[in-house]
Amino acid sequence: MRYITAGESHGPQLTAIIEGLPAGLEISPEMLDLQLARRQQGYGRGDRMKIERDRADILSGVRWGKTLGSPVTLVVKNRDWENWLEKMSPLAEHEGQAEAVTRPRPGHADLCGAMKYGHRDVRNILERSSARETAVRVAVGAVARGLLHALDIRIGGVVVEVGGVAAKPSAEPYPQQWAQAAASEMFCCDPAAELDMKRLIDHTKSIGDTLGGVVEVQVLGLPPGLGSHVQWDRKLDARLAMALMSIQAIKGVEIGLGFEAARRPGSKVHDEITWNPARLQQGELTPYQRPSNHAGGLEGGMTNGEPLVVRAAMKPIPTLYTPLQSVDIATHEPYEASVERSDTCAVPAALVVAEAVVAIELAQALLEKFGGDSLDEIRRNRDNYLAGLRDF
Amino acid sequence: MRYITAGESHGPQLTAIIEGLPAGLEISPEMLDLQLARRQQGYGRGDRMKIERDRADILSGVRWGKTLGSPVTLVVKNRDWENWLEKMSPLAEHEGQAEAVTRPRPGHADLCGAMKYGHRDVRNILERSSARETAVRVAVGAVARGLLHALDIRIGGVVVEVGGVAAKPSAEPYPQQWAQAAASEMFCCDPAAELDMKRLIDHTKSIGDTLGGVVEVQVLGLPPGLGSHVQWDRKLDARLAMALMSIQAIKGVEIGLGFEAARRPGSKVHDEITWNPARLQQGELTPYQRPSNHAGGLEGGMTNGEPLVVRAAMKPIPTLYTPLQSVDIATHEPYEASVERSDTCAVPAALVVAEAVVAIELAQALLEKFGGDSLDEIRRNRDNYLAGLRDF
Amino acid sequence: MRYITAGESHGPQLTAIIEGLPAGLEISPEMLDLQLARRQQGYGRGDRMKIERDRADILSGVRWGKTLGSPVTLVVKNRDWENWLEKMSPLAEHEGQAEAVTRPRPGHADLCGAMKYGHRDVRNILERSSARETAVRVAVGAVARGLLHALDIRIGGVVVEVGGVAAKPSAEPYPQQWAQAAASEMFCCDPAAELDMKRLIDHTKSIGDTLGGVVEVQVLGLPPGLGSHVQWDRKLDARLAMALMSIQAIKGVEIGLGFEAARRPGSKVHDEITWNPARLQQGELTPYQRPSNHAGGLEGGMTNGEPLVVRAAMKPIPTLYTPLQSVDIATHEPYEASVERSDTCAVPAALVVAEAVVAIELAQALLEKFGGDSLDEIRRNRDNYLAGLRDF
Amino acid sequence: MRYITAGESHGPQLTAIIEGLPAGLEISPEMLDLQLARRQQGYGRGDRMKIERDRADILSGVRWGKTLGSPVTLVVKNRDWENWLEKMSPLAEHEGQAEAVTRPRPGHADLCGAMKYGHRDVRNILERSSARETAVRVAVGAVARGLLHALDIRIGGVVVEVGGVAAKPSAEPYPQQWAQAAASEMFCCDPAAELDMKRLIDHTKSIGDTLGGVVEVQVLGLPPGLGSHVQWDRKLDARLAMALMSIQAIKGVEIGLGFEAARRPGSKVHDEITWNPARLQQGELTPYQRPSNHAGGLEGGMTNGEPLVVRAAMKPIPTLYTPLQSVDIATHEPYEASVERSDTCAVPAALVVAEAVVAIELAQALLEKFGGDSLDEIRRNRDNYLAGLRDF
Repeated sequence: MRYITAGESHGPQLTAIIEGLPAGLEISPEMLDLQLARRQQGYGRGDRMKIERDRADILSGVRWGKTLGSPVTLVVKNRDWENWLEKMSPLAEHEGQAEAVTRPRPGHADLCGAMKYGHRDVRNILERSSARETAVRVAVGAVARGLLHALDIRIGGVVVEVGGVAAKPSAEPYPQQWAQAAASEMFCCDPAAELDMKRLIDHTKSIGDTLGGVVEVQVLGLPPGLGSHVQWDRKLDARLAMALMSIQAIKGVEIGLGFEAARRPGSKVHDEITWNPARLQQGELTPYQRPSNHAGGLEGGMTNGEPLVVRAAMKPIPTLYTPLQSVDIATHEPYEASVERSDTCAVPAALVVAEAVVAIELAQALLEKFGGDSLDEIRRNRDNYLAGLRDF
Repeated sequence: MRYITAGESHGPQLTAIIEGLPAGLEISPEMLDLQLARRQQGYGRGDRMKIERDRADILSGVRWGKTLGSPVTLVVKNRDWENWLEKMSPLAEHEGQAEAVTRPRPGHADLCGAMKYGHRDVRNILERSSARETAVRVAVGAVARGLLHALDIRIGGVVVEVGGVAAKPSAEPYPQQWAQAAASEMFCCDPAAELDMKRLIDHTKSIGDTLGGVVEVQVLGLPPGLGSHVQWDRKLDARLAMALMSIQAIKGVEIGLGFEAARRPGSKVHDEITWNPARLQQGELTPYQRPSNHAGGLEGGMTNGEPLVVRAAMKPIPTLYTPLQSVDIATHEPYEASVERSDTCAVPAALVVAEAVVAIELAQALLEKFGGDSLDEIRRNRDNYLAGLRDF
Repeated sequence: MRYITAGESHGPQLTAIIEGLPAGLEISPEMLDLQLARRQQGYGRGDRMKIERDRADILSGVRWGKTLGSPVTLVVKNRDWENWLEKMSPLAEHEGQAEAVTRPRPGHADLCGAMKYGHRDVRNILERSSARETAVRVAVGAVARGLLHALDIRIGGVVVEVGGVAAKPSAEPYPQQWAQAAASEMFCCDPAAELDMKRLIDHTKSIGDTLGGVVEVQVLGLPPGLGSHVQWDRKLDARLAMALMSIQAIKGVEIGLGFEAARRPGSKVHDEITWNPARLQQGELTPYQRPSNHAGGLEGGMTNGEPLVVRAAMKPIPTLYTPLQSVDIATHEPYEASVERSDTCAVPAALVVAEAVVAIELAQALLEKFGGDSLDEIRRNRDNYLAGLRDF
Repeated sequence: MRYITAGESHGPQLTAIIEGLPAGLEISPEMLDLQLARRQQGYGRGDRMKIERDRADILSGVRWGKTLGSPVTLVVKNRDWENWLEKMSPLAEHEGQAEAVTRPRPGHADLCGAMKYGHRDVRNILERSSARETAVRVAVGAVARGLLHALDIRIGGVVVEVGGVAAKPSAEPYPQQWAQAAASEMFCCDPAAELDMKRLIDHTKSIGDTLGGVVEVQVLGLPPGLGSHVQWDRKLDARLAMALMSIQAIKGVEIGLGFEAARRPGSKVHDEITWNPARLQQGELTPYQRPSNHAGGLEGGMTNGEPLVVRAAMKPIPTLYTPLQSVDIATHEPYEASVERSDTCAVPAALVVAEAVVAIELAQALLEKFGGDSLDEIRRNRDNYLAGLRDF
């Protein structure tokens, strides 16, 4: 499975093509729109989120609610396109219908992108580097979630930190945490922390600043043995790190204990192994059990049967009301970069995107492990493999 | 440029093939052996490091000290091979010449790897998942370093944390930090912290435990515009995260401020842009300047002309003298996993490996940006690009 | 540069995303539509070609007539979509709104595709395997042609054989052959052969049969050294063979003399090398000259500075009025496969598709050789390289 | 599965790494050496073949006769290395220990390769472009053959044409043809044609010329549904064409009828489909049957259950005793390229290489279809799939 996305943030649409999906997978616009809606939620968003109520069109690869095995085309329209018809037109005749943007913003792709591609109009960069692109990645992720779901794998996540306010680690099972997060404006399952986060957002907004945070994605039901230790580029932890770091504004990635693992002695880090055949009756995939999950479900670049736990750190949105010093590339004069409309905090949205890219990587790892061109075939192959693990 | 590594830790050798190098790049065994030697240094290593004094043979793609443009084969021999001739023999006739390893170690690929590949002898997994593989990656990295060097790019790094003991951030220029680190048994440029680290290692060793830590890699002289914002899998930050996370025992990756960026307000995170043509006289590549480098030299998935700064968190070595609970897969009986010989801390080695994989990714990004089949051609293409940036 | 296509032949549209194009390349709908129109021409087409007058929409990656460097989305609408809204709907609620196709046609993907993907309705295969897909590949090819054109490379082709009627080899320069082909209903530059081809088509149509043929693509102005000899999957001849064989109905590929080279002695096959500095004044790229071009411009998997000449053999369209024996997969009863509407000969269209895929592979080879993120940068890099060749 | 090869023809060795093989596959040096020996046979070879009696070493990924799942390293030593120690040394200190080759040979990579990589010594190209590289590809192919064999797939081939002398098409089952070919010095199963071929070789050798020919590879027992119609680069016919055209000296590729298909009417090309459940008792994989196999076992880019039949056209060896005109790149003076020792005809060797690359592509297609990390798992997945086909 592979996918490519395309589209500028003020162009007509975002497009993605997903190649290599099996046939027979149930896909509905509702599945996609549900995730797109989640991405638009969260306390601390600006007004643009209200303009666009995203939905996805399925333009190939799905018939009568099921994948065909052929490439799936997903389109998320940009609702504001009518105001940009000429400014972002593909036609040469519209050249000059918008003033060049010559003021690169700190923290964005603006300056280095313009240098790289030889553009003097920074709009030619910022249109594509914008986090708007994540909308269609979330749609791709929704398809991947469909495959996970069909293979009895559950994925969710929570916001664990915003601007330094950290949620208390929850002792609840993950699905309960997800339910709590779904009911929270911060996608956070610690109500006290949520309150503090919202207060901090209000204050930060009032002074024209912005906030980042940390999100955690959790996945249940993964068979052991996804990914591989045999080659550097087939390690699932490496692939997940790439996927998460590829999200706009992400500056750090952790698996399991993450950086904390670097601070503890080995005896407090590694997850002991026990064997309990009764687990099979409880619906677990193998009798092997871990009293702890500090590894976050990944050992040697492979899933180990425990829940997958990954975290990503998002920097604050670089578009601030508070001015940042920059330089006009046309005049080389300094100016103060500031904006009139922006989000204060997009960490909840980042969680949804993080879940999406994790789902995509896992879907790919599942297809590599189980082959198969139809969902039925994959399920049979998976069942065979799991049968072998039960008395391993 | 792409590369594949092969080899088991007690097989005859590790092998790597590097494909896509330009012609005319100077490569010597000394360049490779220097890095291999660095990887074997560091306070806290066990005895195995003494058995193997690694060196690399160049078996293709280099003639008379320069690359040909054809694939480069690197081989690092395993010095202990004579003791494993039959135990690790490729020949069917030696089947059974070693007892099966049936006791998977916590924190290793052992159990999930055996499940995935259907092995009942865990040796068939641990031989490849071992960090021994990083020796040949360091050799590949030494070749990549050669390309960086030829393009006036400098790379180095320091150990910033071991077992919770953190080095004070240094105000020295990076090359001076590297010089200090080179003189330190911990590859650390804060002598006080180094002392504490070594004391902690001694103590930890005495109680049979192990330690991880955090390493930081820094790169100077990178032209802006390596990587790209246009597609998720072409972002340089994503690729670096993948490369770093693919190193055995790495559980976290940060770029620039990393997780700290998630805790600060935006006004304290984004690097302002100024313009100072005098910089060109000082040998800088562009007149654009950043008073800070919180982004770690990467914005929008591209280098921005500032030093690249990335960090990786290494978990403690999972092979402890202190026993960890596990299960024998042949009998399903519990046992206590412990070892007789091991490193206490391999964080300095991890720094060398981290530098290697960062160098590899940067070499690849340079070749994508500048094309070129010979070093001369790449240099000319690079010069053209840089000329354009000087009056951007 | 890479590209993926998507879309079913009776779905709403065909979509392609092209990733990795440089910025600054001129792209217009006219460039695309010109090639799409050529693909629909040719003597011997059925009625469907009249339903669809294809045109391409550019939905990302191009602004004001020039590429941005970001992915380019191309869409070719299926004009008949309104008649298939429910039959090919992505929505589960339309399930059953068309009868299942249970009769696989010989010579198509129908039977093996249904087996592979587990479909009992052959429509789920034939919609994607249809040569309709080539429409959007021709659009992708038109973009690639734009890049070739911008680098002073000219591409064209002729139909050289239809149903066994072979055109006489022309002694005219290629551009003149292309002009003649453009004026011919068979894209053939031998008027006598064209007449015979058309007569054969008329006769074949009258008996309900179909015809294939051979097309030749020629490219002028390619710098020597595209592709590489160093690795099997980087050889340009190999990549061209893959691209051509990937076209629906192609069963053979030749480069230069092709199979004829296997029949001649070596002394009549290899192209001698002479040196004539006057060639530079005539606009040639190097002083090296070949009195013959039996190699078709490719030696050792690389362009050698001579015109590239490749041929592809197309089998007759497998959808015949003349019935072919097949089996209904629902009943396992035999039936006679025949159709009511079809093309008799689509060889001219195949030429246009062949030109497209050759253009795409060459564009990719150029970008690999010259790197560069903007057309200006590529041109500078190319000029540097060519300067070096002039006194090689 | 992927593989890379490395090595110069007078360097110490050829190396290949195969990545992505399942565990549990039986591999022996004998399997490899058998194919290497076949490659060195055939009437019409020169003396070099006697110098080198190739054998392959297995240096990773195989233990006690079975693959581990980790990368397999194969090495074929160059027996003449001791005479080239300094001339091809990787060390700078040996620079100048051999005179530069400045005379590019027509029909070789020499001139365009030197231009591309900026070499003034053509040896830096010809060492890698030499067909010597195919030795290690044959070793890789032997491993792939092992996988085919383990999945009950048989592969073989025959020489069908040399220098215009064509073998009569055989009516024997393929395995019998292979047995006849194995007993023939020309790998040809028509004794009369073999005699003519050998006479032609004798004559051609006497006049210092060389000969090419056509080889045919045939594969039995392939399950239908390998490859895919859904994307251009996943079509198995395209991949086979790439693999075959990547072999040194191949200039044409055909599948099934190939170019002949372009000359016949559709009614004489497409393979009708019948249904005969008795086939299952005869060991066939499905009840569907084709009275003819003009498609060569591939429809829509997928195997269709019939034997795979592909052909490749080899040009004559370009190294002739008969001089060809060329130019010295140091002086720009003309000279006559000729050699003192060479093969007259290497078509039988090309057959062995063609079988190898076909086996590799099929192994890859099987692994994509059936996933699986161990041979047992692949077999179970394959059996499940085939069970479904029996009553399709």
